Amino acid sequence: MPAKVTPRSVDYSRWYTDVVQMADLADYAPVRGCMVIKPYGYALWENIKEGLDRRFKATGHVNAYFPLFIPLSFIQKEAEHVKGFSPELAIVTIGGGEQLEEPLVVRPTSETIIGHMYAKWVQSYRDLPILINQWANVVRWEMRTRLFLRTTEFLWQEGHTAHATAEEALEETLRILDIYAEFAIEDAAIPVIKGRKSESERFAGAVTSYTIEAMMGDKRALQAGTSHFLGQNFARAFDIKFLDQNNELQYAWTTSWGVSTRMVGAVVMVHGDDQGLILPPKLAPIQVVVVPIWRDEEQRTAVMEAVGRVRQALEPEVRLKVDDREGLSPGWKFNDWEMRGVPLRIEVGPQDVAQEQVVLARRDRPGKEGKTSVPMAGLTDAVREMLMTVQADLYRRALAFREANTFYPEDFEGLREAVANGFAYAWWCGDAACEAKVKEETTATIRCIPLEQEPGTGRCVVCGRESRERAVFARAY
Amino acid sequence: MPAKVTPRSVDYSRWYTDVVQMADLADYAPVRGCMVIKPYGYALWENIKEGLDRRFKATGHVNAYFPLFIPLSFIQKEAEHVKGFSPELAIVTIGGGEQLEEPLVVRPTSETIIGHMYAKWVQSYRDLPILINQWANVVRWEMRTRLFLRTTEFLWQEGHTAHATAEEALEETLRILDIYAEFAIEDAAIPVIKGRKSESERFAGAVTSYTIEAMMGDKRALQAGTSHFLGQNFARAFDIKFLDQNNELQYAWTTSWGVSTRMVGAVVMVHGDDQGLILPPKLAPIQVVVVPIWRDEEQRTAVMEAVGRVRQALEPEVRLKVDDREGLSPGWKFNDWEMRGVPLRIEVGPQDVAQEQVVLARRDRPGKEGKTSVPMAGLTDAVREMLMTVQADLYRRALAFREANTFYPEDFEGLREAVANGFAYAWWCGDAACEAKVKEETTATIRCIPLEQEPGTGRCVVCGRESRERAVFARAY
Repeated sequence: MPAKVTPRSVDYSRWYTDVVQMADLADYAPVRGCMVIKPYGYALWENIKEGLDRRFKATGHVNAYFPLFIPLSFIQKEAEHVKGFSPELAIVTIGGGEQLEEPLVVRPTSETIIGHMYAKWVQSYRDLPILINQWANVVRWEMRTRLFLRTTEFLWQEGHTAHATAEEALEETLRILDIYAEFAIEDAAIPVIKGRKSESERFAGAVTSYTIEAMMGDKRALQAGTSHFLGQNFARAFDIKFLDQNNELQYAWTTSWGVSTRMVGAVVMVHGDDQGLILPPKLAPIQVVVVPIWRDEEQRTAVMEAVGRVRQALEPEVRLKVDDREGLSPGWKFNDWEMRGVPLRIEVGPQDVAQEQVVLARRDRPGKEGKTSVPMAGLTDAVREMLMTVQADLYRRALAFREANTFYPEDFEGLREAVANGFAYAWWCGDAACEAKVKEETTATIRCIPLEQEPGTGRCVVCGRESRERAVFARAY
Repeated sequence: MPAKVTPRSVDYSRWYTDVVQMADLADYAPVRGCMVIKPYGYALWENIKEGLDRRFKATGHVNAYFPLFIPLSFIQKEAEHVKGFSPELAIVTIGGGEQLEEPLVVRPTSETIIGHMYAKWVQSYRDLPILINQWANVVRWEMRTRLFLRTTEFLWQEGHTAHATAEEALEETLRILDIYAEFAIEDAAIPVIKGRKSESERFAGAVTSYTIEAMMGDKRALQAGTSHFLGQNFARAFDIKFLDQNNELQYAWTTSWGVSTRMVGAVVMVHGDDQGLILPPKLAPIQVVVVPIWRDEEQRTAVMEAVGRVRQALEPEVRLKVDDREGLSPGWKFNDWEMRGVPLRIEVGPQDVAQEQVVLARRDRPGKEGKTSVPMAGLTDAVREMLMTVQADLYRRALAFREANTFYPEDFEGLREAVANGFAYAWWCGDAACEAKVKEETTATIRCIPLEQEPGTGRCVVCGRESRERAVFARAY
């Protein structure tokens, strides 16, 4: 038997770390707070990248690459930005054996250096919009780190756009938020709440930050992507100016937005169970694993012949793995692939061969309930359909879980209980003092003010003042 | 008229820099020696990545990601390695506002940190081989930098494999060299010489380094990819040990290999001309550009209708761009797309519409010679075929150029003349002193000892001693 993960009910945090390591997603690096993304984890990240990159390109964005190093003085140009990022910087002071005249920051995010370049590239309204995305590594010196969720170095995409008007920039910010939500829902099978960050939680230098927030398996929230309307803050700091159609000099309006390897952690925590990972078919590096079952040579020949036909039928259609490893029992292999979260297993035994069928076993429904016998004749269609069903069911299950753990408290006591058990949709007056009180007394924060709000007003769950919006309060990663 | 590049005959080096900037491939960054890869240049790099990544995966390699930061002590563990890389290191000394106890090196290459991880992952022969590749940024503090060819930070892939036997590792080293050569020839249309590096030119820490060497438009050589057999050097330094089938503890045998954004510079210099870039169709971000030609509204309607049909026919088949920009003359657009090296232009004018045809113009054959009229009916096939022809012709032209500028000197005077005018295939005794003398007197270096050698022996071009191999001498980037 392969080793088992700590059950979620015993210690959720250890369960998470166990799964990430035992499913071969990542390993600790010999550098504080850094991780090694192992091939299986990186293949998952490649599928996440592909799903996002395709959507960015379909909406007119292009990729580019800006330098890793940023002169320290750049970071200091935008007042809020420097306040937010200064404590987290990694700084290069020596290059080629010599002390550098100006220290270089290892990018924690690239608004500043990209702002500098845009100032150079933009002269006229004809040069706008600029719709650039970058796939890159970034570094933030974090105190407490966790594989994928918070690491000193992480991988991400960061989009940086510049526009002629505020309206256009805001539209872009929200278009990206929609792309993030669509990706989370459709590809990662993760339900998300689209919303606006409160002032205290917004990106350092932004006018407004938008976010998609998801509920993890322990009912905590995870910010899975953010999109920022930067107004003219960075344009002023870096002098991104253009002549408009009336020949007047204007500052540009910019946005920035990012999704990181954190998304891998979200996939683990939303779908996984005590057997290990459960991957949504659209992102799974291996969608279907075939396990041959036989006892003697005669059976083996017949089974492997059938497995060959299964491979031939499915290989062009799905990401397939045939597990023909020697010296391991079928049961051991079942556990091994369950740990890795492969959505669908095909078992091929002597009886199946005799009946010209195979057994499909769903990873998301362990035990007999998730097993069906399928004739070899219609296998390809059956597998394709089953993968779609699994994808849809994973989303439905995650949504049902979130809904079952979402509460609508009307007073502070209700809020306190709600955030101990999940998400709280609660009226909030907009006052940072009320927000701070919640955080202090419950450790929960405002995850977002949802964009979709039922009309009406209510009383702030903290101070009782009339409020026009509900916020989502939750304990968060 | 768009601005023009400096002619190659006037100043090749300025021509190169002009093309890179005016074709929008890259721009200088505000950090010494760094560049910004602009969207058009990055799209080219994405196609290079795709061509290599596909070949790596088809030969059983997987991608992973290792940390950017390497403890300084790691670099010091392999004696040759530290000697080679020490002068080029960028070093982080401050993290999160505090002086670090152990400085961190920004990876110049990842043998050391990956060696450390492999030591952790490998216990038994069953854990081998490990066939991992990484797409990443690396930093080497270079004194004299040039866009794409030599920059402080660059993008690359670095493969790192570990094997149970020397034979297997050497086989891997050469398999990758073959992949690099195949990619260069088939995708980049660049003829390359596969060969072994001399001792003085090999990778710091390698037993043997292999390379693919290409001739640029100024007859200098460019190392376009390297594959290193590392023997047990890094396995010993990092303690990568395994129990073999006889239950005996052995050190593993490792390899490493890389191709970088330098390849973009090679594409520019091998194919470009005084009009700008010429891109091989397989790598071109835009393979076909359509330029509508009209004088009045009536013509415009008819032309744009035809352009619509061209788009519909070609868009699923090729990477297509319709240049319907207003206020720019067709001639201006021709020049603009020639600068960017788009392999094929389709002109659609009123006369073409009347005759149900279009004009195809090849970027690699400027003027009338490269123009043909093609009926709308068979357009897709004609375009597909023409792109294949252009791809093949670019390779043939580059090969003919190299052959015309390759010489076989028999004595030192002949060598001196040869390396002033191209590549010299010359007998070499293997003595580093002879190699050093050539470098000192001509600035040419041994680019490689070609793997393919005609049998026989000759007299060393420097000292006259009997020699068993010819080396390729050339001035190089």
